[in-house]
Amino acid sequence: MSSSEQPLRRVLVTGGAGYIGSHVIYALQETRRYKVISVDNHHNSTPKSLVRVAQLARDNLPADASEHDRDSAEIDAHQCDLTKPDEVRRVFEKYGKGGIWGVVHIAAYKAVGESTEIPLTYYENNVSATVYLLQIMAEFDCTRMVYSSSATVYGTPPVIPIPETTRLQAESPYGKTKVMCETILGDLCAAEPSRWRAISLRYFNPAGAHPSGRIGEDPLGRPGNLLPLLAHMAVGRVKDSTLKVFGNDYPTPDGTCVRDYLHVLDLAKGHLLSLDALEPGSKVFDNCPTEARYKAYNLGKGRGMSVLQIVDAMRKATGFDFKYEIIGRRRGDVPDLTADPALAEKELGFTAPADLETMCRDLWNWQTKNPNGYDGPDATSA
Amino acid sequence: MSSSEQPLRRVLVTGGAGYIGSHVIYALQETRRYKVISVDNHHNSTPKSLVRVAQLARDNLPADASEHDRDSAEIDAHQCDLTKPDEVRRVFEKYGKGGIWGVVHIAAYKAVGESTEIPLTYYENNVSATVYLLQIMAEFDCTRMVYSSSATVYGTPPVIPIPETTRLQAESPYGKTKVMCETILGDLCAAEPSRWRAISLRYFNPAGAHPSGRIGEDPLGRPGNLLPLLAHMAVGRVKDSTLKVFGNDYPTPDGTCVRDYLHVLDLAKGHLLSLDALEPGSKVFDNCPTEARYKAYNLGKGRGMSVLQIVDAMRKATGFDFKYEIIGRRRGDVPDLTADPALAEKELGFTAPADLETMCRDLWNWQTKNPNGYDGPDATSA
Repeated sequence: MSSSEQPLRRVLVTGGAGYIGSHVIYALQETRRYKVISVDNHHNSTPKSLVRVAQLARDNLPADASEHDRDSAEIDAHQCDLTKPDEVRRVFEKYGKGGIWGVVHIAAYKAVGESTEIPLTYYENNVSATVYLLQIMAEFDCTRMVYSSSATVYGTPPVIPIPETTRLQAESPYGKTKVMCETILGDLCAAEPSRWRAISLRYFNPAGAHPSGRIGEDPLGRPGNLLPLLAHMAVGRVKDSTLKVFGNDYPTPDGTCVRDYLHVLDLAKGHLLSLDALEPGSKVFDNCPTEARYKAYNLGKGRGMSVLQIVDAMRKATGFDFKYEIIGRRRGDVPDLTADPALAEKELGFTAPADLETMCRDLWNWQTKNPNGYDGPDATSA
Repeated sequence: MSSSEQPLRRVLVTGGAGYIGSHVIYALQETRRYKVISVDNHHNSTPKSLVRVAQLARDNLPADASEHDRDSAEIDAHQCDLTKPDEVRRVFEKYGKGGIWGVVHIAAYKAVGESTEIPLTYYENNVSATVYLLQIMAEFDCTRMVYSSSATVYGTPPVIPIPETTRLQAESPYGKTKVMCETILGDLCAAEPSRWRAISLRYFNPAGAHPSGRIGEDPLGRPGNLLPLLAHMAVGRVKDSTLKVFGNDYPTPDGTCVRDYLHVLDLAKGHLLSLDALEPGSKVFDNCPTEARYKAYNLGKGRGMSVLQIVDAMRKATGFDFKYEIIGRRRGDVPDLTADPALAEKELGFTAPADLETMCRDLWNWQTKNPNGYDGPDATSA
């Protein structure tokens, strides 16, 4: 370590091997300021993503990289289930009291439809596990968290674009688990304002992949989200090749639902900015109504894209002639979920500059290089 | 068992040794229809209450009681912590799949002020423990629950008396744990409508004791609630003998806060009616907006009593000349929490006939016979 270098700051990322987690780890490692500890139970991810993201970090190092920098490119990865506090405690024990600076808590079950079928599993995995994690963090004097929340906390929002002050009224058990964890974090920061600091990030629709095509979204089974589904269709992984569009009679420009897509690497940078905002000198908590150092921010572009616009953009990116049919509205779908990202821009300096074309191009690059996701060989490795 | 007798129905009562729990067990045993299994970690209770309540049940038996009836007077009591699923599972294993008919889930931490100081402990004990309990119940095909909720789920209600349709907006972590558990129960009943049935009971202010004076409220340390505090003052257990009244400038008849007190035995009967409403033929779920068999009911008298009215009633019951001083309002206090109990009356047949005089008399009877709560000898036993 050269004299100008600060010691690496240990940050634990839960769900580190997943789609969001791997891109957040990429962003953390790119700064060469962090030492990443990843925990993941690989319920919906593979450790291969961590191997690849660490390789990307190594490839980014200059030839004469210091030991400090080389260390920042390695991940301390643990297979570990957050519903088993003993497993989590062992990771913290490895570094001792104060050894881990903060936690980026991404791990969760995330399928809205499934959550209505097995709600207890969602409450256990998303809420009980978060309570345990916070208790163990407190034990080890690790009292900074960046929490992965979701735009679903808004349910059917009364105003578009959606400001953070909108009343939270999630409709699915999944969305409610996110509201509950935000509530718990807020109460904890209010109970111990000199100790705890936390930021919840309400994700809108992350899309795309690292431009190298070495990490990306690799859903189990048929993709539940539109962009990965289109990528799977174009690459020939989905047999039924007609897209079902749920309703074209919504009060939106072309009648199909509108969502706010942002590039996953822009989203990942929002986590870096949030970690910085947990620093002592940070101003983001100055205007909190109580002493609690807790804030929630929307992470979106602030621009809505309709289903048909997405299909069109993916047609251009892939050259694939998507067929679609309009069927009835799907229960639970909200016409428009577009973020008001002004607060995150003002207070965190967050922006999401990548456009839809870039997201589609990067997604398609990942998908063509990895038609079977992480199951195939790493076509991009040297 | 005579031919006219149905087999005893096993009902598990969590928090069975506490103030509410012991009176609920009394009401269950009085019917001679139930076999009570109690689980309690004795965090804020003593197993002595269970010994006494079982003795009351035995005393209620006719001389020629059948074996069936004698069995209904015995409690299968387990010291068991709901945050430790293995301990809970062992209780269910004892009876096997389908062996326990339903659960009355009363156990919880319940101090509003404390919950703002140690919120994680509240979320673990009240929410995570409930998720575990429901998961274990599902494992053992036990899918009926009567859940102890609270009027605190309403926060500062916009309309008095408060109907169940009021938006839930609890203000303390304690109150939020109750909202979360109601939410989880509702989602579970919606996910498996042919399997799960649950009723949440939103308690207003339970008071009084069994008229025998053998069971009653025995708070740890200085009582947090008004009536037990007055009883402790009158019996000489509280040194500082001046009552602090927090504010007399509220928009209420005499300016002090108004609460809806009901006799704990009336409250206990609400649990019996709720268990009946979980039966197959029950009509209470017919008007649910979805197929979910889930309902929430207020349990209150529907009549508000002010702090000064309570002091006056306790003066009459005890003959003690309470001194009080009016001090400033206390943060978090709501002027009026009076139930609209119409729905519980209409659908469950619930009423709370005992008046304030009876509550104060029964409380004072318990307190004089047990000046040190369950720590002293049982002055009333034969």
